[in-house]
Amino acid sequence: MTIETVNSPKPLATIRLGMVGGGQGAFIGAVHRIAARIDGDYQLVAGALSSDPERAKASGAELGLAPERCYANYEEMAKAEAARPDGIEAVAIVTPNHMHYPIAKAFLEAGIHIICDKPMTSTLADAEVMAKLAKASNKLFVLTHNYSGYPMIRQAREMVTSGELGRIRLVQMEYVQDWLTEDLESSGQKQASWRTDPAKSGAGGCIGDIGTHAFQLGSFVSGLETQTILADLTSFVPGRRVDDNVSVLLRFSGGAKGMLWASQVAPGNENGLSLRVFGDKGGLEWHQEQPNHLWFTPFGQPKRLLTRGGAGTTPASERVTRVPAGHPEGYLEGFATIYHEAAEAIRANRDGQLAPKGVLYPGICDGISGMRFIDACIRSSKDGGVWTML
Amino acid sequence: MTIETVNSPKPLATIRLGMVGGGQGAFIGAVHRIAARIDGDYQLVAGALSSDPERAKASGAELGLAPERCYANYEEMAKAEAARPDGIEAVAIVTPNHMHYPIAKAFLEAGIHIICDKPMTSTLADAEVMAKLAKASNKLFVLTHNYSGYPMIRQAREMVTSGELGRIRLVQMEYVQDWLTEDLESSGQKQASWRTDPAKSGAGGCIGDIGTHAFQLGSFVSGLETQTILADLTSFVPGRRVDDNVSVLLRFSGGAKGMLWASQVAPGNENGLSLRVFGDKGGLEWHQEQPNHLWFTPFGQPKRLLTRGGAGTTPASERVTRVPAGHPEGYLEGFATIYHEAAEAIRANRDGQLAPKGVLYPGICDGISGMRFIDACIRSSKDGGVWTML
Amino acid sequence: MTIETVNSPKPLATIRLGMVGGGQGAFIGAVHRIAARIDGDYQLVAGALSSDPERAKASGAELGLAPERCYANYEEMAKAEAARPDGIEAVAIVTPNHMHYPIAKAFLEAGIHIICDKPMTSTLADAEVMAKLAKASNKLFVLTHNYSGYPMIRQAREMVTSGELGRIRLVQMEYVQDWLTEDLESSGQKQASWRTDPAKSGAGGCIGDIGTHAFQLGSFVSGLETQTILADLTSFVPGRRVDDNVSVLLRFSGGAKGMLWASQVAPGNENGLSLRVFGDKGGLEWHQEQPNHLWFTPFGQPKRLLTRGGAGTTPASERVTRVPAGHPEGYLEGFATIYHEAAEAIRANRDGQLAPKGVLYPGICDGISGMRFIDACIRSSKDGGVWTML
Amino acid sequence: MTIETVNSPKPLATIRLGMVGGGQGAFIGAVHRIAARIDGDYQLVAGALSSDPERAKASGAELGLAPERCYANYEEMAKAEAARPDGIEAVAIVTPNHMHYPIAKAFLEAGIHIICDKPMTSTLADAEVMAKLAKASNKLFVLTHNYSGYPMIRQAREMVTSGELGRIRLVQMEYVQDWLTEDLESSGQKQASWRTDPAKSGAGGCIGDIGTHAFQLGSFVSGLETQTILADLTSFVPGRRVDDNVSVLLRFSGGAKGMLWASQVAPGNENGLSLRVFGDKGGLEWHQEQPNHLWFTPFGQPKRLLTRGGAGTTPASERVTRVPAGHPEGYLEGFATIYHEAAEAIRANRDGQLAPKGVLYPGICDGISGMRFIDACIRSSKDGGVWTML
Repeated sequence: MTIETVNSPKPLATIRLGMVGGGQGAFIGAVHRIAARIDGDYQLVAGALSSDPERAKASGAELGLAPERCYANYEEMAKAEAARPDGIEAVAIVTPNHMHYPIAKAFLEAGIHIICDKPMTSTLADAEVMAKLAKASNKLFVLTHNYSGYPMIRQAREMVTSGELGRIRLVQMEYVQDWLTEDLESSGQKQASWRTDPAKSGAGGCIGDIGTHAFQLGSFVSGLETQTILADLTSFVPGRRVDDNVSVLLRFSGGAKGMLWASQVAPGNENGLSLRVFGDKGGLEWHQEQPNHLWFTPFGQPKRLLTRGGAGTTPASERVTRVPAGHPEGYLEGFATIYHEAAEAIRANRDGQLAPKGVLYPGICDGISGMRFIDACIRSSKDGGVWTML
Repeated sequence: MTIETVNSPKPLATIRLGMVGGGQGAFIGAVHRIAARIDGDYQLVAGALSSDPERAKASGAELGLAPERCYANYEEMAKAEAARPDGIEAVAIVTPNHMHYPIAKAFLEAGIHIICDKPMTSTLADAEVMAKLAKASNKLFVLTHNYSGYPMIRQAREMVTSGELGRIRLVQMEYVQDWLTEDLESSGQKQASWRTDPAKSGAGGCIGDIGTHAFQLGSFVSGLETQTILADLTSFVPGRRVDDNVSVLLRFSGGAKGMLWASQVAPGNENGLSLRVFGDKGGLEWHQEQPNHLWFTPFGQPKRLLTRGGAGTTPASERVTRVPAGHPEGYLEGFATIYHEAAEAIRANRDGQLAPKGVLYPGICDGISGMRFIDACIRSSKDGGVWTML
Repeated sequence: MTIETVNSPKPLATIRLGMVGGGQGAFIGAVHRIAARIDGDYQLVAGALSSDPERAKASGAELGLAPERCYANYEEMAKAEAARPDGIEAVAIVTPNHMHYPIAKAFLEAGIHIICDKPMTSTLADAEVMAKLAKASNKLFVLTHNYSGYPMIRQAREMVTSGELGRIRLVQMEYVQDWLTEDLESSGQKQASWRTDPAKSGAGGCIGDIGTHAFQLGSFVSGLETQTILADLTSFVPGRRVDDNVSVLLRFSGGAKGMLWASQVAPGNENGLSLRVFGDKGGLEWHQEQPNHLWFTPFGQPKRLLTRGGAGTTPASERVTRVPAGHPEGYLEGFATIYHEAAEAIRANRDGQLAPKGVLYPGICDGISGMRFIDACIRSSKDGGVWTML
Repeated sequence: MTIETVNSPKPLATIRLGMVGGGQGAFIGAVHRIAARIDGDYQLVAGALSSDPERAKASGAELGLAPERCYANYEEMAKAEAARPDGIEAVAIVTPNHMHYPIAKAFLEAGIHIICDKPMTSTLADAEVMAKLAKASNKLFVLTHNYSGYPMIRQAREMVTSGELGRIRLVQMEYVQDWLTEDLESSGQKQASWRTDPAKSGAGGCIGDIGTHAFQLGSFVSGLETQTILADLTSFVPGRRVDDNVSVLLRFSGGAKGMLWASQVAPGNENGLSLRVFGDKGGLEWHQEQPNHLWFTPFGQPKRLLTRGGAGTTPASERVTRVPAGHPEGYLEGFATIYHEAAEAIRANRDGQLAPKGVLYPGICDGISGMRFIDACIRSSKDGGVWTML
């Protein structure tokens, strides 16, 4: 690919978007807003941006929302927006995990598409109900497992599918951080506080927060179904109420094996999500912190460095590539791809059509699968580290 | 920096933006549009998107512009927008180089801020006139040397300024690509065609297209003034009308030395812009394709890997950082930083104030300096490779 | 460390060395011979280089051995050399695993020091008898876990010991190769044949051949004692009689956890031995294929790249460093360090003294520990993947 | 290449080696001795190891030389060894540069092969006389430009020769260190002292010490003849009597261009020798600190990582490879290859034959070429930085 053109999706129609959560002091809400803006598909027009009504109002004003569309709570918002002729078509849910379920329920019932942060819910039971609701609703449910939006992850998945690795034998997943090496939650730091509070995050700490991303990525690329897992969860930091380190062995349908390591207490690791997949004909390796590169080794040949937009890439990655090879795209662009594909699906839904071919945003199945994975890991570990069905 | 919050600029006021160039089939226009959207500062409302009136209209429609603001040419656009109460406040100029000057002139005269792609003009003479016009106009002139928007470049500059490298001795610059290894222009490929046509790009090929980026980056980070250069320009591809490989030696005020290599015919290099700066107390190294990393070596100590948003970063980089360490920001984010800083300056200008402290977008001085560099390199090389004053 | 001097051990006295195995067509024997030569400590003077008497003679001639010291078998050699006034002082055992025990027994009984390739034996039972014999013998038993001879591994160990990482929480070990991705043993390839034959290699395939190296390295650096493990061994290649992929979870005394992955069927991996150790104050990372580098991250500070012989290295690594920083030392040098330290111990033994301070070659304890690890992994896996005491 | 066998040269006959220089406190002498031992080709039997007779004797004793062969000076040594029936066949000259010429002259006249450290002499005039002497002598003259002994450098050269890069356009050479960033010579450090003393090192500092290595490597791999150069030499450290930083532009016969940067004052660089070669069909990249890797990019295809002993390597590199892919060979092995090839040539010379096919040690031509390069750079720089014929 030479410097010829930028693969910038054309915003044929703007989608009216609302947001629940993501007000002042929040983290992921701002990421969702940037992601929604990058390709020009959405306009943010309404929000219940905080559980604190004052903060909700102030946050909305900062973002330029009309005062009457800065709601004090999500129930009110769902009702009011459903009633407006220019009401929102989709809502982004960016609250702590335990609120995903009631909020999504309210908006689905109001006939509004859902774009929900991961994990889907804080309990498997909630997730299963949510799945039924979503399926019954005729509305879209998009789960922002954003890492599956990276072009080279799409490339990897396509290479597995097309058989370039042969029969898959091994899937090695890692997601390693260091930000919880010390007892940060005791300092009152907002992100650490809710993410280590089982009432808000669910029973899983590290396993739910990042382990589930690694699991989704491995499943997405390999296409394999996990049959049984064995997990050893640890809380290394004294007093921590959830796991901060997770070791998992996996056995997939068809005989492939895998390992997954997730940690938030490994100094020197910022956001070390990586994936290695090996088949009987070749191997792949990808690291999130260098997302524009994908190593591919057909057995018995030299390693090849595939680059986003570069020689040897195929339609699945080119479809979600914005700028030429050598001009790095990053985390926000990958996240934006999930939003853009959601937009493609929403527009198709307006017209009673299916989303265009190639749209691959994560949804209900990924959500249920992730919650089953978390649940199985917690059960396995509680039982002393035993093999457990997903 | 732990995962606490996203440094997302709040778009307190939206700026009305126009664009000249960047219609269907263009490259850099789409990049400018994404960059303008990322932080939510601008709304694109008018354009003369192509020199072909039909294409201009169609391109505008695709982007959702009102039909009456899809202009057939820039003269008409400047006049009409200046007359509207809701006319554009700034225009992005994303045409081939030779058009920068007349377009900028028209909009400056219409009282509209300029955001112009680099190099500033196609001749040094044009640049000098433009500089005078811009200074006289009380309008902003922003030159999108986008690479200076990368957070770790800001970090590098601040470290040099604060003396962490000691007295600077060496500045090594590279910008290496391979996309013109073969005679691509003969195929009619649009980007190759105008970039190798002296009538459109100016006398410099590689030196103007990418050499000037490397030079700007070295100057921006080191803070050094170039006194004399010696250049050897080559056109390796038979029939090519401009240089495709450039070797330059530099001598800076104060005794520092430098080298600059720019090439578009080096297979295996996609967008290999890199910078190394060495002083008597330490060294820095940065590569554009891994922009979130900056190597720093205080003499006699182990190398340190500074990461965007990570330990050891300072205000200059944190100011332009959106997401936490380990979540890579890329080319579009760096580009967006230039747009965002332009927005900060435009808002300040509305209020008759100066841009906030820390705003560092490139402007007239970088433009003139870059044109002098190109001009000196071409003269030096024509004379057989001799030392030449800038 | 500047380029001042080379840390080349002075061969004050040459040690007479014999070798069993390692004749024509063998692999590791030649490595041992180079390792023995690098520091000039040894002279190879006798051998039973092959189980085939003709090949033994021819191999000895090629190496310049005197004909009367090219023995047809090891029993004869042990006896004859013990009887000579100029007989060998040490023997290198470089045969397939199942022969280590009887050969070592014969030479220990003949009063000759042992330098034995790993794993120590092919069964745990043999290892335990050998350990007793060795302890009773007053002779040295050196086990060539060569990777512990790398300078940056010594550096890592010293940093853990001195508390720079704080209390150790995690030890992640990998040893990944691809050379057995296909059914190489069926082709008759010599190395593949014996290494996949349980009668020669022992019950473990990959776990014994390379897993044990990774385990030794993790134990050597972390200083932790493994309490229980859980292993999942797989033979991916149809018809293979031993494991070719191993996933292990480890629990150490004191509460630390670990994971170990060893594979010989992961395309794209040549000799991918790596180690990561994390404590509550910092982390380390090392990769065998770039052995002169060690990453060190004190929590909350930038990553530091420590280089062999470079700034920040300490006595434990400098002691085994030959050439200055930036001049890479490799596999053979690391191997040679084990031989050199054995020589230091042998010379001390001659004089009835202890080996000099800092000598760290692996020996009986590493051997027993490795065999217990292999044995426990095989038992754990046979039982379906259950937690098993070492 | 799987782990089948070690490519260990068989020492069919041991060569008697002497050494001049390299006594206690010296640097490169010990490197030569290790290099000579690795493949078992040589036995060190005589030396004039220091210009100080006491130190010469003590150094010889430490190395186990017979007392009567520890000479007080090289003249005596050349005479005495030539007279012995078991006299040395080759001498390694490892003194400061200015002594290379008289010593080599003495030994050539005594009918002894020369293995000489680089650069060949301290002046071009000496080099030219030496070349004539060597050619007239029927003795071998080996110049230890050791970096050309790295397997992947041999691979690179073969790929250029075989046309895989097409017609060569660009050769980019670097050799960057930091050890002379401060005024180390004033501290009395031995290596810094003589290397910055024009009387001992010759007129070139950095250009002679390391620039010439980079130049030799570029010439060796590209096969191009340098026509003219332009050099800018700097002494950054106040009071330094020789250059410590060198920037060179090169023009080769046939129209190719090159750049060479050598520095000893660039903090963060230990021994940063690197080479990039680009032709109209592909490019190569190699870094000395990771010598087992060679990047190869055929234009329009993904980058390939060729590894020593790995897939895609060819006879020229396999010939000088000792251990399998993934087991790093380093600086000492590359150096040993030069010694081993010298041994092959010496044995052939014994028999009145030519060295075996594929032997590529540097010799007289490299020496003369290097001295011409140094001389031209100094002249060019003295004249203000002008184009100068080699």
